[in-house]
Amino acid sequence: KKTLKIASIPGDGIGKEVMPEGHRVLEKAASRFGFDLRFTDIEWASCDYYQKHGDMMPADWKAQLQTQDAIYFGAVGWPDTVPDHVSLWGSLLKFRREFDQYINLRPARLFEGVPCPLAGRKAGDIDFYIVRENTEGEYTNLGGIMYPGTEREIVIQESVFSRFGADRVLKYAFDLAQSRERKHLTVATKSNGIAISMPWWDSRADAVGQDYPQVKIDKQHIDILTARFVLQPQRFDVVVASNLFGDILSDLGPACTGTIGLAPSANLNPERKFPSLFEPVHGSAPDIYGKGIANPIAMIWSGALMLDFLGQKEAHDAILKAIEQVLKDGPRTGDLGGKATTVEMGKAIAELI
Amino acid sequence: KKTLKIASIPGDGIGKEVMPEGHRVLEKAASRFGFDLRFTDIEWASCDYYQKHGDMMPADWKAQLQTQDAIYFGAVGWPDTVPDHVSLWGSLLKFRREFDQYINLRPARLFEGVPCPLAGRKAGDIDFYIVRENTEGEYTNLGGIMYPGTEREIVIQESVFSRFGADRVLKYAFDLAQSRERKHLTVATKSNGIAISMPWWDSRADAVGQDYPQVKIDKQHIDILTARFVLQPQRFDVVVASNLFGDILSDLGPACTGTIGLAPSANLNPERKFPSLFEPVHGSAPDIYGKGIANPIAMIWSGALMLDFLGQKEAHDAILKAIEQVLKDGPRTGDLGGKATTVEMGKAIAELI
Ligand SMILES: CC(C)[C@H](C(=O)O)[C@@H](O)C(=O)O
Ligand SMILES: CC(C)[C@H](C(=O)O)[C@@H](O)C(=O)O
Repeated sequence: KKTLKIASIPGDGIGKEVMPEGHRVLEKAASRFGFDLRFTDIEWASCDYYQKHGDMMPADWKAQLQTQDAIYFGAVGWPDTVPDHVSLWGSLLKFRREFDQYINLRPARLFEGVPCPLAGRKAGDIDFYIVRENTEGEYTNLGGIMYPGTEREIVIQESVFSRFGADRVLKYAFDLAQSRERKHLTVATKSNGIAISMPWWDSRADAVGQDYPQVKIDKQHIDILTARFVLQPQRFDVVVASNLFGDILSDLGPACTGTIGLAPSANLNPERKFPSLFEPVHGSAPDIYGKGIANPIAMIWSGALMLDFLGQKEAHDAILKAIEQVLKDGPRTGDLGGKATTVEMGKAIAELI
Repeated sequence: KKTLKIASIPGDGIGKEVMPEGHRVLEKAASRFGFDLRFTDIEWASCDYYQKHGDMMPADWKAQLQTQDAIYFGAVGWPDTVPDHVSLWGSLLKFRREFDQYINLRPARLFEGVPCPLAGRKAGDIDFYIVRENTEGEYTNLGGIMYPGTEREIVIQESVFSRFGADRVLKYAFDLAQSRERKHLTVATKSNGIAISMPWWDSRADAVGQDYPQVKIDKQHIDILTARFVLQPQRFDVVVASNLFGDILSDLGPACTGTIGLAPSANLNPERKFPSLFEPVHGSAPDIYGKGIANPIAMIWSGALMLDFLGQKEAHDAILKAIEQVLKDGPRTGDLGGKATTVEMGKAIAELI
């Protein structure tokens, strides 16, 4: 019997409430589909830990996690006690970079039973993936401030792209598009304004695309692209973007399907040299923490993506089906207009597997 | 009688079709409200001109325009003949920078008679302004490529911000928020990911905000902010953003109100040291050019903003009222589900003034 070793890191706020429901559903899937899960519960990578230790993680975090098959992550951040740039750069962004999780994959999909903020759309109309570069690009602390604190202050912020980094995410996106029915790849750009990196990014998309003659490439500037997420979401199949543009599009996409509270995300090292990380798109939600009313679906769906990545596709499909059914028939947590608790939702989904 | 000197630059594509309707309506407003318009028609700053002269504009463009009160601009770009980065950096982006039009102001507003892509919204629900920094930030050609053309390629793209540049746009936005009923200012940021410029931008917003105790400041990361444009557009009043983030938000905002084809934009040098520029948000639209069916409202509304900026507020209000009425009662061009031509729309609006 195959055993999957999972580091389980609830993190902060509702991360701690939805994680047990993730476990519940994954355990059920494991027993049904005949594999074992060995969870290692980790309390660091949280602001509580930071307050006690002055650091988000212990010095040997990397060694502790390296032996795991995957990291199952709740949410990090508690701005009242630890500034976001400290908590995030000290945990989540460190994982992404040091474990070279260079793909951030997020689905945008419209479900029956989930109110859509866009007019006149129905389940099935919207179903696409955002593939975000996750390790370089616009997210850097490079640059600096000249004449700091004076009237003459000048600030330089550097973005850094590499052919190595761009080509591998483009390749992943082309492969994904190729595997889908429509074989359509939208490439987010802004080459008409950002004059060095973005024309270069466009040219890398063309170069990598040479190997995928069946995939239709459609380059779109980020400004009009965000508009089209709202106006013509049905036209998207796979969208590939730099770190910043991908960050924006992968919040906007789920917002357009009413699923920003339900959406999962996979931070992948496709070669499995390092463990990949699976987490909800939503954050720690200080406003509702402690009430037991957070919707656990994003956590559960993230777990399904994790099982899929670890070779348990059947388990993934069964969990997705259970999520779809609960979204349609209830129970529903408050965000979906119901009164169910986090635990009730988790149990309902587990029972359907 | 006051005379306003306007440089009229139709540019490319449907810019050439909607410009005459802009003239028609502005002339009507001028005769009604007792001022004179002297248009200087300019055929450069277009791709046609580029094809003949190898440059987008004559060498003395700045001198020619400097004596004008404002620039009334259609649309630029014809990618089949001239690459966008050539046509845009050679005209529009040059105007913005060399005439120090450091404010790009765009309204997002829901009208009766305009189908809204968001569910359950009605006229009046959405009414806000996006104030975009228009001269620095992420739009640069600074940086470069190391090992170009090889596997080892590394690309650096620099963004440049100055206290001078940030403070003046923030001040403008605070002033605008202060003048409005809700006095609410959203500051777009990404300080949790872009680690040098964005935390600094946040701190400038706080510093400038000291002088505006009545204005409520709300900092939001660009990813969730785009999501909230879709989910809670009613909560926005004034939104201020860097060049790139403002570019994105000022396409997305009008998209959410179904007005991306109707939206105007003002490129302002508030001190009037240089002429300001007024243009539709839409582009040259090669796909519909030549048929006489483009909707001229964005051009006309841009003209209204121009008159307002030049001290003719009554004329602005009358044009806006006429636009509102035509949107409600017709005639309608194809984009609004009707069959009216560009000229018919222009005439209908002019008649109502
Ligand atoms: C919290 C933040 C740093 C993070 C990001 O921008 O990557 C988040 O928005 C995300 O998308 O995972
Ligand atoms: C055409 C392009 C360079 C321009 C910009 O990005 O500023 C346009 O999108 C705009 O918003 O006016």
